Amino acid sequence: MEFLEDYQKIVAKAIARYTFKDKPEELYAPMNYIISHGGKRLRPIMVLMANDMFGGDQKKAIKPSLAIEFFHNFTLIHDDIMDEAPLRRNKPTIHTLHGINVGILSGDGLLLKAYKFFEDLEPELYKACVRIFTHTGILLCEGQQYDINFESEKDVTFDDYLRMITYKTGILSASSFEIGAVIAGANFKDAKHLFNYGKHVGIAFQIMDDYLDVFGDMAQFGKKHAGDIYENKKTVLYHYAMQNATPEERDELNYWYSKKTDNIDKIHGVEKIFRRTRVEEKVLQLIQKHNHLAQEFLAKIDVSEDRKKPFVELANYLLKREV
Amino acid sequence: MEFLEDYQKIVAKAIARYTFKDKPEELYAPMNYIISHGGKRLRPIMVLMANDMFGGDQKKAIKPSLAIEFFHNFTLIHDDIMDEAPLRRNKPTIHTLHGINVGILSGDGLLLKAYKFFEDLEPELYKACVRIFTHTGILLCEGQQYDINFESEKDVTFDDYLRMITYKTGILSASSFEIGAVIAGANFKDAKHLFNYGKHVGIAFQIMDDYLDVFGDMAQFGKKHAGDIYENKKTVLYHYAMQNATPEERDELNYWYSKKTDNIDKIHGVEKIFRRTRVEEKVLQLIQKHNHLAQEFLAKIDVSEDRKKPFVELANYLLKREV
Repeated sequence: MEFLEDYQKIVAKAIARYTFKDKPEELYAPMNYIISHGGKRLRPIMVLMANDMFGGDQKKAIKPSLAIEFFHNFTLIHDDIMDEAPLRRNKPTIHTLHGINVGILSGDGLLLKAYKFFEDLEPELYKACVRIFTHTGILLCEGQQYDINFESEKDVTFDDYLRMITYKTGILSASSFEIGAVIAGANFKDAKHLFNYGKHVGIAFQIMDDYLDVFGDMAQFGKKHAGDIYENKKTVLYHYAMQNATPEERDELNYWYSKKTDNIDKIHGVEKIFRRTRVEEKVLQLIQKHNHLAQEFLAKIDVSEDRKKPFVELANYLLKREV
Repeated sequence: MEFLEDYQKIVAKAIARYTFKDKPEELYAPMNYIISHGGKRLRPIMVLMANDMFGGDQKKAIKPSLAIEFFHNFTLIHDDIMDEAPLRRNKPTIHTLHGINVGILSGDGLLLKAYKFFEDLEPELYKACVRIFTHTGILLCEGQQYDINFESEKDVTFDDYLRMITYKTGILSASSFEIGAVIAGANFKDAKHLFNYGKHVGIAFQIMDDYLDVFGDMAQFGKKHAGDIYENKKTVLYHYAMQNATPEERDELNYWYSKKTDNIDKIHGVEKIFRRTRVEEKVLQLIQKHNHLAQEFLAKIDVSEDRKKPFVELANYLLKREV
């Protein structure tokens, strides 16, 4: 998508410009390291897209868009420690290279540095944006804690899971759009509509991730097949299967999801029940539901259709993967 | 000191009022746990003292004073992980009770929650305070990284060490006073004078800590005697000894400070050189120097002597320990 690439160039340029030159290097080099490894820069792009939707001054939105990107990278550094992940984007993670202490500290520093990127805004805007930013960060921590809890909890409901992914994935894209809209001077209602658009796109995107974990083309997806099943993650796939399983199948699911094992029989057994209970179809319907909800919120926003087009395209792009 | 106790009661009441009731409990209970274990609450008291000095509305300063206290506790949670400390204020540390992951995450959450305590302030004040707060946090991370670096660096100078303790200890008390002054509406100059007063009191306090590590009454101090020497910390004591040592003594210091050992001969050997080079006297002079600098900044502030009295008393209280 051409417009995404244009935005990516703008973000890349800004990131290059705001590379940390501070000392001590042992603190800042890891921050620059993780930020330089890229990714699609979707979250800062969301800030810029929202700002453009409401005719905002792009210059004003660039540093706040980096705040979101840097915040996102702070969460990656700390999450990688918690997950004991050796690699991120095919590069060694920070704690793998420099130890847990540097991981903790450079993560903390990056979160604090992210706050600084709002400081060019006038006080009213600064306060509005920093409040959204702080609130988002808190929900992300809560989502992460729910995710940790769910590993050992037996009774995780469908709604529990949906709230967890909303906090972990939905809110950050929602807030990225909202911050961009607020900086452009959008009215409260429109900013909230765009927030909700982003929330449902984010939720749909995460469910797609869960879907691809089992039903995706491994090579394209670039992750271990059925990793969520190995790790007993009670994603929507699991919940749909449980809802439609026979008592015997339910017992079998309970059996497998209480075991930590690399046994391939587990994957075969669980996937057979997923097929039997038509999980694939139901998950795709749920993704479409959230995509439709997103489009409904987009429709409510008081700007020309022309300005909404990139948002329709973005959702299609994010959710197209193989569906 | 009576006025300190009065302030402590105010802070205790506020902390009780703002105990986290959010969910998930697994995230918030550790935050409440560390905050409930107290300490002298010096930093929030500094906010309130500064606010009172300039006749500010105490109600307005209370939540920001908790921001400082909660921020301080965030640093303790993460520092305890980095130091692998089993105990804090004679209670098990959070990572000891709940694991490193909960330590990292509840620390992150506490930092973010701290930001929320400024949100009752009007935008101008909010921005002014949050900027100071963010900047302080960044310097603390830098100071912590310097401290980590110094463990393995050979050429740590006196100035390096002084900068490190300024970042780790001086700036937080300085900023606590500054934030209180800003909330009360103090002019820029007076707020900066109070900042500098706090900085030098903080530095003096930290040097006193280093002094007591070797020359203090262990029972009163409640820490392992000469822990800094065991850990090869190049505090001002070390630097003064090096400056005044004979070549042979310097070799001996270099020898001991390159060894990690619990050998009591190390302590005896180092302390003998400390005595010979009159380190004790010089360190006490340095503490007095920073106390005098603090008092000089205090003198410049444009309020009545009456309002400065608690600040003189606070410095004396903090620096009196055994000297």
